[in-house]
Amino acid sequence: MAGGKADNSKSKANTKGKEKEVKKETKLGLSVKKDDNFGEWYSEVVVNGEMIEYYDISGCYILRPWTMSIWEVMQAFFDAEIKKMNIKNCYFPLFVSPGVLQREKDHIEGFAPEVAWVTKSGNSDLDVPIAIRPTSETVMYPYYSKWIRGHRDLPLKLNQWCNVVRWEFSNPTPFIRSREFLWQEGHTAFASKTEADAEVLEILELYRRVYEEFLAVPVIKGQKSELEKFAGGLYTTSVEAFIPNSGRGIQGATSHCLGQNFAKMFEINFEDDKGEKAMVWQNSWAYSTRTIGVMVMVHGDDKGLVLPPKVAALQIIVIPVPYKDANTQAILDTCAATVSTLSAAGFRAEADLRDNYSPGWKYSHWEMKGVRAVRRDNFVKADIAIDGLVEKVKELLDDIQQSLLDSAKLKRDACVVVAKTWGEFAEALGQKKLILAPWCDEEEVEKDVKARTKGDMGAAKSLCSPFDQPELPEDTLCFASGKPAKKWTYWGRSY
Amino acid sequence: MAGGKADNSKSKANTKGKEKEVKKETKLGLSVKKDDNFGEWYSEVVVNGEMIEYYDISGCYILRPWTMSIWEVMQAFFDAEIKKMNIKNCYFPLFVSPGVLQREKDHIEGFAPEVAWVTKSGNSDLDVPIAIRPTSETVMYPYYSKWIRGHRDLPLKLNQWCNVVRWEFSNPTPFIRSREFLWQEGHTAFASKTEADAEVLEILELYRRVYEEFLAVPVIKGQKSELEKFAGGLYTTSVEAFIPNSGRGIQGATSHCLGQNFAKMFEINFEDDKGEKAMVWQNSWAYSTRTIGVMVMVHGDDKGLVLPPKVAALQIIVIPVPYKDANTQAILDTCAATVSTLSAAGFRAEADLRDNYSPGWKYSHWEMKGVRAVRRDNFVKADIAIDGLVEKVKELLDDIQQSLLDSAKLKRDACVVVAKTWGEFAEALGQKKLILAPWCDEEEVEKDVKARTKGDMGAAKSLCSPFDQPELPEDTLCFASGKPAKKWTYWGRSY
Repeated sequence: MAGGKADNSKSKANTKGKEKEVKKETKLGLSVKKDDNFGEWYSEVVVNGEMIEYYDISGCYILRPWTMSIWEVMQAFFDAEIKKMNIKNCYFPLFVSPGVLQREKDHIEGFAPEVAWVTKSGNSDLDVPIAIRPTSETVMYPYYSKWIRGHRDLPLKLNQWCNVVRWEFSNPTPFIRSREFLWQEGHTAFASKTEADAEVLEILELYRRVYEEFLAVPVIKGQKSELEKFAGGLYTTSVEAFIPNSGRGIQGATSHCLGQNFAKMFEINFEDDKGEKAMVWQNSWAYSTRTIGVMVMVHGDDKGLVLPPKVAALQIIVIPVPYKDANTQAILDTCAATVSTLSAAGFRAEADLRDNYSPGWKYSHWEMKGVRAVRRDNFVKADIAIDGLVEKVKELLDDIQQSLLDSAKLKRDACVVVAKTWGEFAEALGQKKLILAPWCDEEEVEKDVKARTKGDMGAAKSLCSPFDQPELPEDTLCFASGKPAKKWTYWGRSY
Repeated sequence: MAGGKADNSKSKANTKGKEKEVKKETKLGLSVKKDDNFGEWYSEVVVNGEMIEYYDISGCYILRPWTMSIWEVMQAFFDAEIKKMNIKNCYFPLFVSPGVLQREKDHIEGFAPEVAWVTKSGNSDLDVPIAIRPTSETVMYPYYSKWIRGHRDLPLKLNQWCNVVRWEFSNPTPFIRSREFLWQEGHTAFASKTEADAEVLEILELYRRVYEEFLAVPVIKGQKSELEKFAGGLYTTSVEAFIPNSGRGIQGATSHCLGQNFAKMFEINFEDDKGEKAMVWQNSWAYSTRTIGVMVMVHGDDKGLVLPPKVAALQIIVIPVPYKDANTQAILDTCAATVSTLSAAGFRAEADLRDNYSPGWKYSHWEMKGVRAVRRDNFVKADIAIDGLVEKVKELLDDIQQSLLDSAKLKRDACVVVAKTWGEFAEALGQKKLILAPWCDEEEVEKDVKARTKGDMGAAKSLCSPFDQPELPEDTLCFASGKPAKKWTYWGRSY
């Protein structure tokens, strides 16, 4: 291939340290298969697909343009939706003073081991160490207390797009578990629990749409157990995805009702419409760049990334295929004209007219990055006439978007096992399934399940109790405790 | 006023700590005048106009929705413009390892005293302290070295929207000098100096447009002196604003050509089209939330903020004025209909229909926040008929936008003094002027000027040598050294 040749000749002029990369560029494609070594495959896909570059500080990653354009598409959608809900953007500081951070006890217990501390500036020690936000409840709520005085100050609904830091030590994974990540965090305060409850679900529905409509990843909406809920909150709802290849659930995004716990600690009171002092009801909710990792894990294949058209920076790449005795210029002109037509119709299209790479090299390159005129999801090649191009392409992209979701749903559903007894549960867990089991909903029982399933692969835990509950016949017993079951709950290992 | 009464009654029910705020809300308007105590005035305007809340860590500020909406308008403009230039967004980590940070000597000397260091996570000490980015040259360029191999990898043009931290100790001021701030930072690499030079100016023109077209703040485009250029760079261009009230210049945004200094330190080499090894030419450029502070300082008045319509979250506030025996409902309906008409036409309009505040209170409130149907810039009240409302309002807003720029330009220009001798210079400096002086362009002479003007108010320094140079007659001498002058340069105290 022309591409390979050019790269080899280049490497000679380069320094020794660069040779490894040159080799990588030459040998397009992945060295491991998704089914053979999922962890290695994932690392290769995000690096070779130019989404991520590993960074010299462990657990930190560089988000490359191919990633950021996906993030920006989701951000544009979500930001517009919350603005319709009259939620306003703001920006609170990155830093928290220790006194404030520790105000809510359960909350800080949940985050303390992961907090990064600034203790020096230049060569001087700071008087008091300063924490970097792992999340902003304690950063924001002292000011909610200041700003909220009467019922007319409610609801107070703020959101911020920012970075947060959680200095985790276990298994850093690009997008999925990183020490710094990007997210939005919404923080709202209401006069009544009814309003707070309603918003929790309204936001959760937006998260479902981010996953299903944009990333084409099927998710389950439900409520987290007491053990798994947000530290310091009243209850947590989430959208849960599942990764068939690793057999692990993954919390996709969370929408918490904080109840009045933080209001009490931070004295967020108001005079209600009867002139009486009352405490606010609060929510907080967030989704992060983790979404992108879930998408890669669900859709990627042995050729690389597969990007849903709705979030892809480039939806269509036009590759000229010159052949002997052809009028090369005419082919190139047609390619350029095709891109113009598609761009004018609102598609994100480009032509790869580079003359130092062969069509074959280009196919591999763009397949690795998840985009191609040949359908990237099922490799069906279709000849599309120039006449009616725009309509055909629109149909094609809509179809790809839908097919990706449908096929991911089929694969996910094929992993669901209903387990009514501990035996069934243990067997299904061994098979890396997503387990739906009747549960007594007792915290001690979940702790017990964790203890009994401890091992190299990590313990099982509850993922969520789906809002969409199957019928639970009376006298159904808990799979783990044998006590009367109160609900169906999804269980499994998780990220 | 109804508003005042309601607030007083509320304060009784509140805790002691909240009384001060209630008082503030009741007594709308500012307690100091812009001309009397500019520093105090500025603090009051940004707090009472609900742009900023002071935070419990000195030098950190909360950016409230009224601020963020301005930031987002500028961001939408700038982001779209750089995307047209094929500059891509990315996100690099917040953290830098010390070895990398110190690679470029001049650069780290410039930033070292302000770097914040993370030394602990949870209760454990980190093996190596980790720096928080004060800017991202050293974060990014090791990867530029990795990504750039041949001339076909160039230009590499990346930008990121992020927070940076500079732990400064002198005079924290909201927006203008804060320990954490938001900005965009562009980092580009080219095969030739010609391309780099051209981009420096293209970006600088965008910064001029942010200031002049959006914030209605006049700026001077020019080049910084050797002493004032970016640490480690080749040359720095900037847009410089001037604050008549404080008599200080302020660097509005900078576009640096880094030359090949960083390329050398970080080994950013490529094989050029002749197969020879070459070093890239680099630029970096940034503007920050400081822009918003400059806008407040330039346009604000004794009633509070004055926001240019193009960046205002709300361009028009419609306030009903019910009167005795009037059909109140009809008035309210008309207000709502007016807002609908204006919103449909693309204006950012709202009605303040609250019945617990008087029209007078509302006028003061919205004046403080910089927006009102009565022109906020010159207080001329105009009756606008419902017929032709949209056209009239468009005209009005365009006119306000232009008037703000024109009037700021007049005020700025009135501060400019040409000083040809040290005596003239010293006198103008005493009068807090923006001084244009012929200069020999020698670094030692600038150091000498700084030394000779040291004092309570801070030393004078060069602001920029404007690209738009007045004629410099031969034999003109430097105002400070008496040597032959090479160029006209602006001097003054600065932020």
